[in-house]
Amino acid sequence: MSSSLPLVSLDNDGKGLGAFSPDWPANRVKALDWNLLREDVSLPVAVLYEARMQHNLAWMQRFMKAYQVKLAPHGKTTMSPVLFHRQLNEGAWGITLATAPQVRAAYHHGVRRVLMANQLIGRANMAIVAELLRDPTFTYYCLLDSPANAAQLGSYFAEQGLRLPVLIELGVQGGRTGVRNEEQLQALLSELARWPQALALAGIEVYEGVLTDEDAIRAFLRRAVDTLRTLATHAHLRQDGPAILTGAGSAWFDVVADEFTGLDIGVPLDIVLRPGCYLSHDVGIYRNAAERIAAHNPVARRLEPGLLPALQVWAYVQSIPEPGRAIVAMGKRDAAFDAGLPTPAMHYRPGTAVPLPAPGHWRLRAMMDQHAFLDINADDDLQVGDMIAFDISHPCLTFDKWRQILLIDEQYQITGVAPTYF
Amino acid sequence: MSSSLPLVSLDNDGKGLGAFSPDWPANRVKALDWNLLREDVSLPVAVLYEARMQHNLAWMQRFMKAYQVKLAPHGKTTMSPVLFHRQLNEGAWGITLATAPQVRAAYHHGVRRVLMANQLIGRANMAIVAELLRDPTFTYYCLLDSPANAAQLGSYFAEQGLRLPVLIELGVQGGRTGVRNEEQLQALLSELARWPQALALAGIEVYEGVLTDEDAIRAFLRRAVDTLRTLATHAHLRQDGPAILTGAGSAWFDVVADEFTGLDIGVPLDIVLRPGCYLSHDVGIYRNAAERIAAHNPVARRLEPGLLPALQVWAYVQSIPEPGRAIVAMGKRDAAFDAGLPTPAMHYRPGTAVPLPAPGHWRLRAMMDQHAFLDINADDDLQVGDMIAFDISHPCLTFDKWRQILLIDEQYQITGVAPTYF
Repeated sequence: MSSSLPLVSLDNDGKGLGAFSPDWPANRVKALDWNLLREDVSLPVAVLYEARMQHNLAWMQRFMKAYQVKLAPHGKTTMSPVLFHRQLNEGAWGITLATAPQVRAAYHHGVRRVLMANQLIGRANMAIVAELLRDPTFTYYCLLDSPANAAQLGSYFAEQGLRLPVLIELGVQGGRTGVRNEEQLQALLSELARWPQALALAGIEVYEGVLTDEDAIRAFLRRAVDTLRTLATHAHLRQDGPAILTGAGSAWFDVVADEFTGLDIGVPLDIVLRPGCYLSHDVGIYRNAAERIAAHNPVARRLEPGLLPALQVWAYVQSIPEPGRAIVAMGKRDAAFDAGLPTPAMHYRPGTAVPLPAPGHWRLRAMMDQHAFLDINADDDLQVGDMIAFDISHPCLTFDKWRQILLIDEQYQITGVAPTYF
Repeated sequence: MSSSLPLVSLDNDGKGLGAFSPDWPANRVKALDWNLLREDVSLPVAVLYEARMQHNLAWMQRFMKAYQVKLAPHGKTTMSPVLFHRQLNEGAWGITLATAPQVRAAYHHGVRRVLMANQLIGRANMAIVAELLRDPTFTYYCLLDSPANAAQLGSYFAEQGLRLPVLIELGVQGGRTGVRNEEQLQALLSELARWPQALALAGIEVYEGVLTDEDAIRAFLRRAVDTLRTLATHAHLRQDGPAILTGAGSAWFDVVADEFTGLDIGVPLDIVLRPGCYLSHDVGIYRNAAERIAAHNPVARRLEPGLLPALQVWAYVQSIPEPGRAIVAMGKRDAAFDAGLPTPAMHYRPGTAVPLPAPGHWRLRAMMDQHAFLDINADDDLQVGDMIAFDISHPCLTFDKWRQILLIDEQYQITGVAPTYF
């Protein structure tokens, strides 16, 4: 499954980079000898700590292996093929994505098995997927939850002479997408039956992350298993490939693994889990999820230490205009702000030996597009030009602020760059 | 001031585009004959309506002309050189930007006068600016509000043998950056006096947008005028160029124009206003601001109609899983959500003649990364595969979700593309 990653150059119009010659290859960043503490790089900058990320990659693969399920990390989190290939090389079965343009970007960068955990809607999006399906080495699945969409896809792919593998999405009342009940399911199966040449039903998909209660989640997952078993029994599934059963965002993958592991439905079956945020982890919503998992899941406990926060945004103090108030040159353009503001993790004064832990009372009060308001004590030793490393909450909306993420080692040397394609 | 715009190709890894041959030049998009209603383009897509944008460009230039002040639109809103050049060709004096990498991106795309309405902090950021300053055709200003930063800049630019034009930023208690009081101002002037070869004091900057009360804003603006007059009287200002007095975000530019117009401080003076969001306008925070302006400003009343919302995100209905709930394939990855959610403006069913106004009761309830939850009535005529055009609030955080924005005419033909450089 490991594939080649096309060469790209560093983007001379980008942010969060140091100096380089025009057309410098992105995969040769290490040779530029940039060091974050030496101020070689323009701040604000988003950095991924190599060692912590590698720990997270290995951790999740071991977790999935323990449950004998496959991993298709949700790539919409990072949209970075360099990181996709890290995940694939670590053993991932494929990459999950959310939109047709995301799928195309991944394909262009060597990814050859994609689970699109979303409906495929609209002529131009269907055209993007159709073009990729003509490559016999490319495997793709999308979700389906309505006869209307089945008719649209059936008609389009029949015209193209292509057969589109689809997964029926199940959903819950009050949730997001997905078939709610048996009546909707039967209507969908009837429409599917009209397009045997164009649509290949491969299995069942759920996204349990719209629920917040473990019992409800387990009930939902069992409904998925029962539905898949019925489809298999009644020969609704395609014959030319394994059945697929897939679920799991980044918050409840342990419960999904626990419910789906060891399942036998009488036909070849790939059980695919799709957490995406584990690569970078965070100190907000996903740390909270990890704490629940560590408290309840025996495999996760065996694999201690758990996931480590690997993504930070570094920024300069640009002004301390009043006692107790520092303005930091980092804003909504640089870090997620929708699930808790970034939190100061380290403080570094250029020219000194090493970053120190940021005092616990430093706290962001607000962010604007390009600025953050940091509450400090009036007598704190903080100066204009000091650097602060911020941990973040919600990696997805931090990654999408950056076209290039720097990879960095424990000595703050830049070891690589991960271009993104949002 | 009009400069050449380097050719770039359409990004084949991008979203919100139609089909094109590899390396197709972005400036030849019109020849691809894409039409939004014909489903030639992958949705979600961000579109700028040419006619409305052109109206806005002309409106703001006429407003500034009436007050005899100069316009340096804040380019951080769009970060799109195609749009910068529209603004410059319409008569803008320069482009305002927020960070050194933004300045470099604008420079690479032909912009030659930049007001960086921010402090310049850190060695790598100073290096970016220093390189540009070596081009004698490039004019640049940045802000300064602390002796610490003055010492850092003085030392760096002295070493480089360069002279950096700076504006003293004034600020208000409880506000963002900026000198708060006379004591801070004198300390800053003392430090500036140490670096006559490296730092050239060109004038005064304020950002009044941190205040919400008109009287307080007017008092702040008068303080800026008084301070500038004192600097001029005491020969603190550089001799080799006009003095600069600059203020105004997108919400209070009328009050700033009113306060600053006709000012005489005894030396040549450029009064520069910096609204940025007028190009696209919106139906949220900036519509509210425009209503206040229309109610109080005589020039704005003479220029009716006022600014028009010119930016929309179009997306597909991907699922209607329950009566009264539609799921739309558009998320936090596609539109701003921090100052009001996008609002449905039009509804279009592919194959029908024209889009119709969206019913007033359609309303987004929530957004996830790639999905939006739309409340509708159970008996509304809405189908999977229908398109909805959303007006947006907060253009800045919508533009930064797109690497390419489509320009579009009243027949929904794509007339151009505006690449962005966030």
